[in-house]
Amino acid sequence: MTAHTPGIEALIDLFGRFPGIGARTAERMAYYVLKQEPADARALSDAINHVITRIGHCTACFNYSEVDLCGVCSDTRRDRSVLCVVEQESDVITIEKTGGYKGLYHVLLGRISPMKGIGPEDIKIGELMERAKHEEVKEVILATNPTMEGDTTANYIREQLGPIDVKTTRIARGLPAGSNLEYASKAIVSDAMEGRREL
Amino acid sequence: MTAHTPGIEALIDLFGRFPGIGARTAERMAYYVLKQEPADARALSDAINHVITRIGHCTACFNYSEVDLCGVCSDTRRDRSVLCVVEQESDVITIEKTGGYKGLYHVLLGRISPMKGIGPEDIKIGELMERAKHEEVKEVILATNPTMEGDTTANYIREQLGPIDVKTTRIARGLPAGSNLEYASKAIVSDAMEGRREL
Repeated sequence: MTAHTPGIEALIDLFGRFPGIGARTAERMAYYVLKQEPADARALSDAINHVITRIGHCTACFNYSEVDLCGVCSDTRRDRSVLCVVEQESDVITIEKTGGYKGLYHVLLGRISPMKGIGPEDIKIGELMERAKHEEVKEVILATNPTMEGDTTANYIREQLGPIDVKTTRIARGLPAGSNLEYASKAIVSDAMEGRREL
Repeated sequence: MTAHTPGIEALIDLFGRFPGIGARTAERMAYYVLKQEPADARALSDAINHVITRIGHCTACFNYSEVDLCGVCSDTRRDRSVLCVVEQESDVITIEKTGGYKGLYHVLLGRISPMKGIGPEDIKIGELMERAKHEEVKEVILATNPTMEGDTTANYIREQLGPIDVKTTRIARGLPAGSNLEYASKAIVSDAMEGRREL
């Protein structure tokens, strides 16, 4: 038997469904909610309701946004000649955190996956083509994941971009910084060898 | 700059305040909320509101409860002759999980801390004395933490229980199971030596 009340049990169960949250952490989180001032705990439920009801997608790049154009698209300092194509919204954050990219994004909201029956028409590739045709766009960086599906998606987009006068690039693959050849998989080492550059 | 929307930022901030939740996990959690079906995300905010508004304390032992008497206190199979005294509600769960304790609990809702200005009257010691006086109670197990404040609290309660005809015991301290003498602190080793038992 457990001595949790049904309400606490329900909360632990819901927290436990989050990625990276184990049973122990979920339990600690639920008890933390209980220990908080009711106003603070309510701020959390309000924040959850807020994102459910208020957050949609940027009409230009399909990143998350609470307004028509997301913060990146509406930032006049961004370089409008480059589009970085990513699979999902959180990939934008990952790249933004490097602080090195100054162009715009295009979020596909998925990846081509024949296994799962997801074709090019199911993700935002048509919209990408429309954007790429604009004269100001000079380069499209394909930053889908270096996985089977990410590569398939990148290859498809590269083909589609063929007739359009735009440079198409793919993010580099190789050994991750700080890693060790000894522990890298064959696929990683092959990528690193193949992608070698002259010094 | 960050490309999070203000609503996502707020949610990440709130998740990040939880114990054991780092910045990366908080971010993943917020994005998980966004990826969920709205109904599932709303279940979480509802569960939070539920525990805020519905969960109080058992009128007998001060464990969390959604009704007058908590699940342990109202369970007729529990041994009413033993009271296990703990500092906080989650300690009940910790002991329940061992599956070995069949008595009742008494949650102090704190510990005596002269440093923080918390005295015996600020926690549920008076209520414990009332319960201990009942004829059916034969043993009070002091399961406050083996810390300065937990020990102070246990010692104070032992003194208070002096005139009452009840056995008072303190949970054992020593080397944690699975640990190694080599890495144990002097305090742990001293406890282990002092608490040695004949075989």
